[in-house]
Amino acid sequence: MSEAIKTDVLIIGAGPCGLFAVFELGLLDIKAHLIDILDKVGGQCAELYPEKPIYDIPGVPMVTGHGLTEQLMEQIKPFSPTFHLGEMVEKVEKIGDPGFRVTTDAGKVFECKVVVIAAGGGSFQPKRPPVPGIEAYEGTSVFYAVRKMEQFRDKHVVIVGGGDSALDWTLNLHPLAKRITLVHRRDDFRAAPHSVEQMRALVASGKMDLRIGQVTALEGSNGQLSAATIKGNDNAVETVPCEMMLPFFGLTMKLGPVAEWGIALEHNLVPVETSAFETSVPGIFAIGDINTYPGKIKLILCGFHEGALMAQKAHRYVYPEKRLVFQYTTSSSSLQKKLGVN
Amino acid sequence: MSEAIKTDVLIIGAGPCGLFAVFELGLLDIKAHLIDILDKVGGQCAELYPEKPIYDIPGVPMVTGHGLTEQLMEQIKPFSPTFHLGEMVEKVEKIGDPGFRVTTDAGKVFECKVVVIAAGGGSFQPKRPPVPGIEAYEGTSVFYAVRKMEQFRDKHVVIVGGGDSALDWTLNLHPLAKRITLVHRRDDFRAAPHSVEQMRALVASGKMDLRIGQVTALEGSNGQLSAATIKGNDNAVETVPCEMMLPFFGLTMKLGPVAEWGIALEHNLVPVETSAFETSVPGIFAIGDINTYPGKIKLILCGFHEGALMAQKAHRYVYPEKRLVFQYTTSSSSLQKKLGVN
Repeated sequence: MSEAIKTDVLIIGAGPCGLFAVFELGLLDIKAHLIDILDKVGGQCAELYPEKPIYDIPGVPMVTGHGLTEQLMEQIKPFSPTFHLGEMVEKVEKIGDPGFRVTTDAGKVFECKVVVIAAGGGSFQPKRPPVPGIEAYEGTSVFYAVRKMEQFRDKHVVIVGGGDSALDWTLNLHPLAKRITLVHRRDDFRAAPHSVEQMRALVASGKMDLRIGQVTALEGSNGQLSAATIKGNDNAVETVPCEMMLPFFGLTMKLGPVAEWGIALEHNLVPVETSAFETSVPGIFAIGDINTYPGKIKLILCGFHEGALMAQKAHRYVYPEKRLVFQYTTSSSSLQKKLGVN
Repeated sequence: MSEAIKTDVLIIGAGPCGLFAVFELGLLDIKAHLIDILDKVGGQCAELYPEKPIYDIPGVPMVTGHGLTEQLMEQIKPFSPTFHLGEMVEKVEKIGDPGFRVTTDAGKVFECKVVVIAAGGGSFQPKRPPVPGIEAYEGTSVFYAVRKMEQFRDKHVVIVGGGDSALDWTLNLHPLAKRITLVHRRDDFRAAPHSVEQMRALVASGKMDLRIGQVTALEGSNGQLSAATIKGNDNAVETVPCEMMLPFFGLTMKLGPVAEWGIALEHNLVPVETSAFETSVPGIFAIGDINTYPGKIKLILCGFHEGALMAQKAHRYVYPEKRLVFQYTTSSSSLQKKLGVN
């Protein structure tokens, strides 16, 4: 185990709420490190809509996701936060009252007084179809996304699903694969009509197979699939050759390891009280899209508010002996000094 | 009574929180009118620190009070709010469930489904000295500010207080008044030393009177003062001629008429629940500096959050039959149409 990095507060997630939390903590002389699973700061703003305009940041009629991230980075610069990007927090252990040891999948260890979960929607993960024993083939014969098309050359491929991903990969892999079997539970597809037509033409000309039903069992060994059993809607059961399988059942939001940290959860969200957005574990806070409380709406501006109230309570844990006097950046020369403007 | 102006929501206070509330309501197709006691929008930002930089608006490293006001006006332009400036709301009456009739001191009458109090610190008002019966002379013989100096010509004027206002008006009115008596409870003044010296010189040369003690009683009739009784710190009691009185006991934050609207108050603030920032009266909300709840801090960014959650609940009152589907400005073309950007 590497030597522990000591900090006042560890923020999990470097999206807009995590970034602004650095500002509110910084005004109270509280130092923060941030960890993010992405290789850049900005969270969903940077990953999902860097170039799309956002219109509802108060006092900012229009800004892109990238622009907002830049502005927040500028705003927190005086507090020199330390970023650990491309890492996922795996373990949060209680070592004090409050006090935590946090371990990432890159092997880094942190020791801190306060943990702030600002992990947004968590991580998006593909839904696993309900086929017994499928886990044993994941990553070797079962894939939820196509990274290298070459892997599918000359293989018997079973694609499961009725949306755009299923149809697109059916059409894209058809020229490479030995044979493609598309399995969908209804003879009705949510994909683009043109793709559906193309697929139906291939089926009509005998160049691929379409089965209406569900995959109910898999055969194979050592992670290598050999066949799939399909139960038709007419209850007929058939076994087809299957070396590779691509299930496209949509994405689901996964909290990931958060679920293992001993805090109460509710429908994949972290319930918090609303005076400081603290979780069921004193010293662990949750702000932004990942938390829930009566009236919660998932707006960035709400996460900013949550971070401000969190910082007041975090101050009590970091500086139990100090009384906190509330001050304004507009009038306090001490805060202005911290911001480097006075 | 003039004809009632009908609107969905009436916002009392056109400071930053009141302005941004227009945006959040507008996204939900809710129309708003705003009333402010000031003759301009922007509240404290415009009145107290128009040129001072603010550093803690999230995503905005620096903006002046004036600049923030301008940005918010730009942001809410698509929703064409109607402003009623230089007016004070005097009366809020319940006429529906919910539904309110609101009357201003300019005689305007509004009928609305929802009232949002965004009145900031309320209105600053002078403190009344503890002299029995003083109310009967206010506005005729007792004034808390000097509007026309001519009113004081050739009068016996009693000025009470030991700060700059008391000393400045003693010196300014001395040439006009028949005789000035300055009353202060201690022989020690908080005013500028030079003013205090000038006052002492006038007293030494017999041109005015200084009494150390308190005004304990007033004489007069029909709102017209004739004499004031002063009890000295030596317990001597004296009655001096007094036609006009100017007490300068400092300013106090007054809720003003809010106190009469039937909503629960707590130390001059309006307690609210935190799922929608609604007061004890359903349909009346309070956002920004004027409200209080566990963890409350008086930051503009908190008022923005409060306005966003308020709007969700207001929607239920304004459109009880419509289901509210939460949408984002970044992805919803319907919201973008409302904003005039799509």
